[in-house]
Amino acid sequence: MPSPWLVIMVVTRGIRRVVFAVPRPTGIMRVMTVHELRDLFRLPVVVAPMAGGPSNPALVAAAAEAGALGFLAGGYKTADALVAEIAEVQAQTTGPFGVNLFVPGDRSAEPERVAAYVTSLAGDALATGGAVGDPVWDDDGWADKLAAVLATAPPLVSFTFGCPPPEVVAGFRAAGTAVAVTVTSPAEAQAAAAADADLLCVQGMEAGAHRGTFSNSDAPGQDYGLLSLIGEVARVTGLPQIAAGGIVSTAQVRAVLAAGAVAAQCGTAFLRCPESGAHPTHKAALVSPRYTVTAITRAFSGRPARGLLNRFMLGHADAPAAYPEINNATRGLRAAAARAGDTDRMSLWAGQGFRSATNRPAADVIEMLAR
Amino acid sequence: MPSPWLVIMVVTRGIRRVVFAVPRPTGIMRVMTVHELRDLFRLPVVVAPMAGGPSNPALVAAAAEAGALGFLAGGYKTADALVAEIAEVQAQTTGPFGVNLFVPGDRSAEPERVAAYVTSLAGDALATGGAVGDPVWDDDGWADKLAAVLATAPPLVSFTFGCPPPEVVAGFRAAGTAVAVTVTSPAEAQAAAAADADLLCVQGMEAGAHRGTFSNSDAPGQDYGLLSLIGEVARVTGLPQIAAGGIVSTAQVRAVLAAGAVAAQCGTAFLRCPESGAHPTHKAALVSPRYTVTAITRAFSGRPARGLLNRFMLGHADAPAAYPEINNATRGLRAAAARAGDTDRMSLWAGQGFRSATNRPAADVIEMLAR
Repeated sequence: MPSPWLVIMVVTRGIRRVVFAVPRPTGIMRVMTVHELRDLFRLPVVVAPMAGGPSNPALVAAAAEAGALGFLAGGYKTADALVAEIAEVQAQTTGPFGVNLFVPGDRSAEPERVAAYVTSLAGDALATGGAVGDPVWDDDGWADKLAAVLATAPPLVSFTFGCPPPEVVAGFRAAGTAVAVTVTSPAEAQAAAAADADLLCVQGMEAGAHRGTFSNSDAPGQDYGLLSLIGEVARVTGLPQIAAGGIVSTAQVRAVLAAGAVAAQCGTAFLRCPESGAHPTHKAALVSPRYTVTAITRAFSGRPARGLLNRFMLGHADAPAAYPEINNATRGLRAAAARAGDTDRMSLWAGQGFRSATNRPAADVIEMLAR
Repeated sequence: MPSPWLVIMVVTRGIRRVVFAVPRPTGIMRVMTVHELRDLFRLPVVVAPMAGGPSNPALVAAAAEAGALGFLAGGYKTADALVAEIAEVQAQTTGPFGVNLFVPGDRSAEPERVAAYVTSLAGDALATGGAVGDPVWDDDGWADKLAAVLATAPPLVSFTFGCPPPEVVAGFRAAGTAVAVTVTSPAEAQAAAAADADLLCVQGMEAGAHRGTFSNSDAPGQDYGLLSLIGEVARVTGLPQIAAGGIVSTAQVRAVLAAGAVAAQCGTAFLRCPESGAHPTHKAALVSPRYTVTAITRAFSGRPARGLLNRFMLGHADAPAAYPEINNATRGLRAAAARAGDTDRMSLWAGQGFRSATNRPAADVIEMLAR
């Protein structure tokens, strides 16, 4: 027997999967078939999960109906609310969709520094009429949401802020759900491959909102641009890549496909769509001449995220790495700022291509991107 | 007359140029023809100018003979030395090539801060056996080099660290030399278009060595990844784009062409070639397991530059924005570190794709990139 490859075929929920078992110390490597990938990515466009409002069943269903794959954002909501959203999508479309979950991280090791930072926000809270909350840690309902999503078995689940343990990946696989892990570096891609993920969501630093880094800190050397990242990840694993970060045009979709990705994941491009649940003030800021560039900040949440560069970001460049503690502490302040239309104190998440975000329906944006 | 476009044809040195004059307040916009672009970019690969050693006549001639376009690096050498290099290239090839010049910037407005920083390097100087020099400002022989390059009229000249005044651009044009300006943001692209540049070298933050920013500082909001930058620049000007930053593979060349660039400019991919004049210790560091990531620093030169993350960068994260003052002050220290093989105190410039740099001949790398 000359080949070192043992080929195994598995059929789950009508989808044929091919498993290649290689006798090497790192264990078994599974490879999605072209057939499976085509079921998920009928068009090479993914509507990114955007937690905190923008992503909702209407946007995900519109994406599926237009031939793309949309993501429900599991972050910041209860398991019950997420299950209701999944049901709502399933009632509106039979197309494929995904659910995104946040992987909980460690508590901050510097509570005094976090407390001092939160105290420094008192003036902003006063200005908005909101209050600064306690910098409490939580796991975003991890166990409940895992169980709930597993029970509904959507076609695809993606993870952000970390890599789920291999048994979680195996559980979804057994339920017929493909597993993607968001990575921002070759090292994170290797960790995801070791946990036996099916796909990687490869996120460049151009991306809007929270970076998917496994750590809350932005250590030097982790600032990969998307095109470099696709190449560097391909050096360490052959897993299919969904490319994310700053993609807002047909040409950019074609570029990431040429670079080797199987699909382009776009968030900012859909922020202003009528289906998007982004706050109207956030939508308006994306076309305001007041904001011309984006930058990465920890000021709002304690974890690097890209948004329109505003006064809050400039005034709080000293925010420690402490997510979700700081995110929880600033929630009331951010909500009050949004109510007051105070864009200088809102988290105006946006990727580097934000100027191309249009208010046309999601189906039109998908058609443009996949042209 | 329904069209607002007035079409003018100009023939210079046998090359037909088409000028479209549009009656709009910002003046006349010149557009290079496909024919002209094809003369310069027979293959869609440009060997980047790498000042300080790597770029030399052998590398540029090898690039031209292989069908690519190489750049002599005018920085850090005398006008006479540059003229000799141009003659050497012309003796070795009849193919097209370019010459890169640094545009001088302003003196640092914080001499005390610069002096304090330079003083803080005493320990590193002692460790290398080198000396810290005076943080003097200079213009890198701007006027002499402009005159010298103008007199030799190479097919292409590119500028970095700023935009030359329109009369300089016009002078090169009259001599039959096409003019490219290196830009890192849409605002810089607009400035280059306003100066009537023929081409843009669009440099993403993935790029190795000095960023081409017009300013020495790295203000928030200027960290464009290459793919986003190509798109954002295309929103503000239709000038042809040479894409630069992290490009080390066939797939990445195809990606930037799909994104709309006319060619891919690669530097790091050629650093280890036998023709490259990079210091042997620098070449060795690119494949050393000691260095795994790159980061942007001002520690060595006072202007943002990307290199292999080493102890000097980690230890001097507080370097002010003061180029060329700090570059001049650290020259002796860096040279002594190189002589001693002390890679912890050398500027090991490298782009994010440095792991793909090979020691094969430049012609092989060009063939691979343009495949």
